[in-house]
Amino acid sequence: MERTPVWLMRQAGRYLAEYRATRAKAGNFLALCKTPELACEVTLQPIDRFGFDAAILFSDILTVPDAMGLGLHFVDNEGPAFHRPLRSEAAIAALPVPDPETELRYVMDAVRTIKTALAGRVPLIGFAGSPWTLATYMIEGSGSRDFVHAKRLRYERPDLLKTLLDKLAEAVSLYLAAQVRAGADALMVFDTWGGTLDPQGFRGFSLASMRQVVERLRQLAPSVPVILFSKGAAAHLGEMAGAGCAALGVDWTASLADARRAVGGRVALQGNLDPAALFAGPEAVRGLVAEVLADYGSGPGHVFNLGHGILQHTPTESVAALVEAVRDLSPAYHRGS
Amino acid sequence: MERTPVWLMRQAGRYLAEYRATRAKAGNFLALCKTPELACEVTLQPIDRFGFDAAILFSDILTVPDAMGLGLHFVDNEGPAFHRPLRSEAAIAALPVPDPETELRYVMDAVRTIKTALAGRVPLIGFAGSPWTLATYMIEGSGSRDFVHAKRLRYERPDLLKTLLDKLAEAVSLYLAAQVRAGADALMVFDTWGGTLDPQGFRGFSLASMRQVVERLRQLAPSVPVILFSKGAAAHLGEMAGAGCAALGVDWTASLADARRAVGGRVALQGNLDPAALFAGPEAVRGLVAEVLADYGSGPGHVFNLGHGILQHTPTESVAALVEAVRDLSPAYHRGS
Repeated sequence: MERTPVWLMRQAGRYLAEYRATRAKAGNFLALCKTPELACEVTLQPIDRFGFDAAILFSDILTVPDAMGLGLHFVDNEGPAFHRPLRSEAAIAALPVPDPETELRYVMDAVRTIKTALAGRVPLIGFAGSPWTLATYMIEGSGSRDFVHAKRLRYERPDLLKTLLDKLAEAVSLYLAAQVRAGADALMVFDTWGGTLDPQGFRGFSLASMRQVVERLRQLAPSVPVILFSKGAAAHLGEMAGAGCAALGVDWTASLADARRAVGGRVALQGNLDPAALFAGPEAVRGLVAEVLADYGSGPGHVFNLGHGILQHTPTESVAALVEAVRDLSPAYHRGS
Repeated sequence: MERTPVWLMRQAGRYLAEYRATRAKAGNFLALCKTPELACEVTLQPIDRFGFDAAILFSDILTVPDAMGLGLHFVDNEGPAFHRPLRSEAAIAALPVPDPETELRYVMDAVRTIKTALAGRVPLIGFAGSPWTLATYMIEGSGSRDFVHAKRLRYERPDLLKTLLDKLAEAVSLYLAAQVRAGADALMVFDTWGGTLDPQGFRGFSLASMRQVVERLRQLAPSVPVILFSKGAAAHLGEMAGAGCAALGVDWTASLADARRAVGGRVALQGNLDPAALFAGPEAVRGLVAEVLADYGSGPGHVFNLGHGILQHTPTESVAALVEAVRDLSPAYHRGS
């Protein structure tokens, strides 16, 4: 029976006891990313437990800037940080584009290991951060609330920001193409901070550089479907649908019906239950899943997901209820299609 | 010569040396809010320095839940917190609606003191947090990133959330009406966290309770103009314009031209330069102000502002450049109007 496929962003994560056990074995988050067997283990855990319809590579978006020499590390309870943030024109000019098969070999090894372990059960999604999102971390040197340094570049030296984003677009394209060669079946670009830009900035920097990635991938990995996801950028979905991607992620602040009208059948849509909704009990979750399915409506082109990554303390019963509800309720939307 | 008026959200704040001096005299932020003479001093500082066209009461949105008995305090570098967060149905039912002239007397005294000190130089804007935004702090017990507790109520017990919001709408209305009696010339409702809701949640909880406030104010303070500002809710501006308010704040992620089309002349618009843009040099700021003015276009109904509160380390030269640019460049948009 045809139904809506389902997977969750950050489905391999701290809300799972088995993930926490593997992470403890690795020692820390970065070691977990850098050990292909353990990255494979956590990638498969949510598939085994919930029967999701896709696996997503367990890794971090900041592996790319790390390979560019910025020195990624994680500060307890404060998230990622770089030893050498990018603050000068000279540093931007000197930034190398890493060769994924050597400098990011551990990621490609993880993809190959996962691909073998999956043995065709479900497709594997590879991913990268968007050029703009990577740039914010590289310039700020860590996570940020107001992006004052990155925004200063955007408003004062747009030319220099463009130079940086061009380099990142090339690095991200090579990285994603290597993931496809290693076995990834689809690719997703996470533009976590695109929605913090003004409309002109979003168009000229975030979306323009994602479009460059999609176009470069057409040469490097011609037939692979690419999903773009810009959080907080629902107003731009219509324009994003013309970027050459196969699907767009939609966060929970937009209606899927509106999003569907905006993209006009050009791309599939992925989303968009509020991750915080999973803190409601399983009964409520079932009703909320029904609302998301109804909001998208009948026909193909919907991949059920959350509107952003699953949260740390999410009860696993709610996740199970979500998957069950999608299985039970979505076939009604595929009849006759 | 007619021109676009300008003031900035959080214009009395830490980016000003004179504010920091007054705050040091007060001892801490809350003492500053609770001492009418000092609150008056910091309210007037940016008027004296930059010649803004409006003053805004110096206070905090959490004075209302504090007066409801939750025990507001400020944790160093972590922001506001409540000693008694709201987590049970019984606690919500027991919540009193404070009498502003007794339990929030210090705010009314500040309004009266400021009004006298202003002596008619510029109008005084009073303000409050929106019911939904206050509810998030009251339920979470502090600032939050994911609003898991507040959202749980939204998804699992919408009836109970509604009870809480009804009570807050009444408390906010009485509080704002008292500010008008004390001398406020206009009112602004800050819905800082409305944009974190799903569309149905925004409509049913954030916007619905702001509409209740506006309607109640029509009885309590019939002719006072009310400005509504929901951050991250640009998609809802059209609907918000029908709430009975005089103006809407617009954050920097939306285009004012789009916003103007959405509201169709029903309300004025206030905004919307990215606060982070002030970290670019004065020359760049002048160009960015020109873009915001051009984006709104010709005619009345625009109040120049930032798209959110001014940031802590903002250079004062950039603020001066902003005000000068609005004075120099905006008259061209008012000719013949």
